Amino acid sequence: MKPSIPKGTRDFSPVEMSRRNYIFDTIRSVFGLFGYRQIETPSMENLSTLMGKYGEEGDKLLFKIQNSGDYMSGLTDEELLSRNSLHLASKFCEKGLRYDLTVPFARFVVMHREELQFPFKRFQIQPVWRADRPQKGRYREFYQCDADVVGSDSLLYEIELVQMMDMVFSRFGIRVAIKLNNRKILAGIAEAIGQADKMVDITVAIDKLDKIGLDGVNAELADKGLPQEAIDKLQPIIRLEGSNSQKLDTIEKVLSGSETGLKGVEECRFILDGAEKLGMKNRLELDLTLARGLNYYTGAIFEVKALDVEIGSISGGGRYDNLTGIFGMPGVSGVGISFGADRIYDVLNQLDLYPKETEGGVKILFLNLGKDEAAFSMSAVMELRREGIAAELYPDEAKMKKQMSYANAGNVPFVGIVGSNELAEGKVTVKNMETGEQNLLAIPELKELLG
Amino acid sequence: MKPSIPKGTRDFSPVEMSRRNYIFDTIRSVFGLFGYRQIETPSMENLSTLMGKYGEEGDKLLFKIQNSGDYMSGLTDEELLSRNSLHLASKFCEKGLRYDLTVPFARFVVMHREELQFPFKRFQIQPVWRADRPQKGRYREFYQCDADVVGSDSLLYEIELVQMMDMVFSRFGIRVAIKLNNRKILAGIAEAIGQADKMVDITVAIDKLDKIGLDGVNAELADKGLPQEAIDKLQPIIRLEGSNSQKLDTIEKVLSGSETGLKGVEECRFILDGAEKLGMKNRLELDLTLARGLNYYTGAIFEVKALDVEIGSISGGGRYDNLTGIFGMPGVSGVGISFGADRIYDVLNQLDLYPKETEGGVKILFLNLGKDEAAFSMSAVMELRREGIAAELYPDEAKMKKQMSYANAGNVPFVGIVGSNELAEGKVTVKNMETGEQNLLAIPELKELLG
Repeated sequence: MKPSIPKGTRDFSPVEMSRRNYIFDTIRSVFGLFGYRQIETPSMENLSTLMGKYGEEGDKLLFKIQNSGDYMSGLTDEELLSRNSLHLASKFCEKGLRYDLTVPFARFVVMHREELQFPFKRFQIQPVWRADRPQKGRYREFYQCDADVVGSDSLLYEIELVQMMDMVFSRFGIRVAIKLNNRKILAGIAEAIGQADKMVDITVAIDKLDKIGLDGVNAELADKGLPQEAIDKLQPIIRLEGSNSQKLDTIEKVLSGSETGLKGVEECRFILDGAEKLGMKNRLELDLTLARGLNYYTGAIFEVKALDVEIGSISGGGRYDNLTGIFGMPGVSGVGISFGADRIYDVLNQLDLYPKETEGGVKILFLNLGKDEAAFSMSAVMELRREGIAAELYPDEAKMKKQMSYANAGNVPFVGIVGSNELAEGKVTVKNMETGEQNLLAIPELKELLG
Repeated sequence: MKPSIPKGTRDFSPVEMSRRNYIFDTIRSVFGLFGYRQIETPSMENLSTLMGKYGEEGDKLLFKIQNSGDYMSGLTDEELLSRNSLHLASKFCEKGLRYDLTVPFARFVVMHREELQFPFKRFQIQPVWRADRPQKGRYREFYQCDADVVGSDSLLYEIELVQMMDMVFSRFGIRVAIKLNNRKILAGIAEAIGQADKMVDITVAIDKLDKIGLDGVNAELADKGLPQEAIDKLQPIIRLEGSNSQKLDTIEKVLSGSETGLKGVEECRFILDGAEKLGMKNRLELDLTLARGLNYYTGAIFEVKALDVEIGSISGGGRYDNLTGIFGMPGVSGVGISFGADRIYDVLNQLDLYPKETEGGVKILFLNLGKDEAAFSMSAVMELRREGIAAELYPDEAKMKKQMSYANAGNVPFVGIVGSNELAEGKVTVKNMETGEQNLLAIPELKELLG
């Protein structure tokens, strides 16, 4: 029997784990500096919690867990023979695997509302599962890293989240553009030109300016049923240029008739000004073509693009107004962002940005040259470990070549050699594996070298 | 709709997460010092990998995942109407959730044998799932923390693992007894008294000495079918007392006729001597009644008991000889240990041993006393964060009482107050929430206080 793993899932090797931990630890530590606190929710939720929250397609992509015991009992012959897999799944299964971190978070807030202090700032780094067709870069099990604050509509949180994305990517050394939009501006534009129901069409068309040019965009707008008058009014928006504040001034003029739109302009101005005043390492730009999850977000919309690698967005988020409404707790406004760990992993790999420490492994491997030598080495190894220095001893008196190839495979920076001479002197010959240099050191000197 | 979570599963609050992270981080860091490297495997494995590995009872306790798409196709009416839930599960489901970390690790070693360097030292900290009846302290989703080395039969690894358990629990501040036994000694005893097939009965009976006394143990042995002569020979073993080396001397005499048994004595002596010579913070004791997973272990057996709390074992492990044989890769010896995170959590709680830092949360909360004051505070907050000091600003100009109750609920050690005076001076009034003391500080002084 040749073992395998389910398609769309992955094993992570020690080197991959060191890199993934570097990503998660960096994000976790920034979340902590900003006062977000970690929670975890169970991998399995009741299907009643999950179903109907991700659209019809989402329901199909949920991994469902078969009830234990006699899951067939109580089913009529007719039901069984109907072979209606969706209906029967609801009989066979009561639980499903987490599909994202948002719905479990909403469920958490509602269940624990009495214990929580609002505004509640939480982060969550856990795997999610989707029965998607596996393909390059798309997995059936992958991690999400989300930070959200619920129970406040203060725009200070939008500023904070922009700062947080800025700090995360500057710690990684990834140059990014952080893009900002606002659902209220998009709604306002559609409203101001008398086409309130065409918001999505307008956003999608404007997004194509780079690809199809101004005439192409205008043709598409006409194609979607916009009258010429409305298209004329849109021209300053489509050809929006200049600094963030110049753009906002232009938009403000177009939106003078829309209360919602002007509110959106005001919010954007506050967030852009606030974030810039606090100092940004990365570019922050207003981008009206940003439309992720339009139906979900109600205010600010964020997205982060890497500047030096061709890849989709590596972080994003926004403000939503009714996260917990689905569980009977209305009126809770929230705002949050999410980091795409798998894409960040790829970007760091492509740009070769992992710090050297993420190679992991021990700092020194002692060779095993005999029983007494090994006993002495083992006590040196334990002394180093007690000082917080990762160290190990080769377990057998194997051939030198075999021991050295173990050291090389482990990328060990130093090798410790204790033969009869070293044993007599109570010292260790230390070989620097990069330079080849060898020195005879006493244990305290060794600690100093490696500490 | 009132949301809930599946029975036997748990949400973890921020405080619980801080404590759990403290446990996992401590264990992870000790694993790293000893040269064990982290891997992760998918939450779901093919059922063909899992089935038959945990006994008949285990097969029933596997959580099975329903195939996506039309999982009913290809089934005859007869099959469906048989309502044979076990048979049909094998048709409906190809995947199951990880039941432990050992079988996935064996599968990992076999699948990646060409890329791995042996001996391969790995650790793994991930959740596992079991469809057990939930009860106090037993969950359907819980974490395991395992460290194993495969591909070497060197006893130096047994010594290393004993040292590792010793270091983990001394870092936690939990006083423990680390117990050692050896399957070869148990087999040798049964063999030496001519009752090779009664090894388990003998071990179980001896284990009851404290509860039922010597007469009780002897009666039970007779009851199990041991002849009087064999029981007589067992007396020195049942009444085994003294230091580890005195015990080994006694056992050695009884086992003089059993090659296997003498090998076990020699192994124990090597491990006990070796570990003691390296220095132990906790008691290490030979305990012949230790019999965990008898059928699985082939050499050393470890178990750790907390001395100051009544609770089952909080760590354990041993040597096994054929972990990967089930996947067609025979002859790979290994030895490993596992830490029980949930029980360690309970022990640390009961003994109140969590370091103060695990309270988590920010070091300082700035109150929000107005627009300009908030802008100044926000830039102070960002300066602190850039220095690695967790800080936040209350998001709205709410009533003082509300803001202070938020600070109290978050266990914030300091509160920063910026009113019009502070704003004019460019300073912050800092209140120590424990002592009530207040000081007016410039930002660099504030960094020094909190850094």
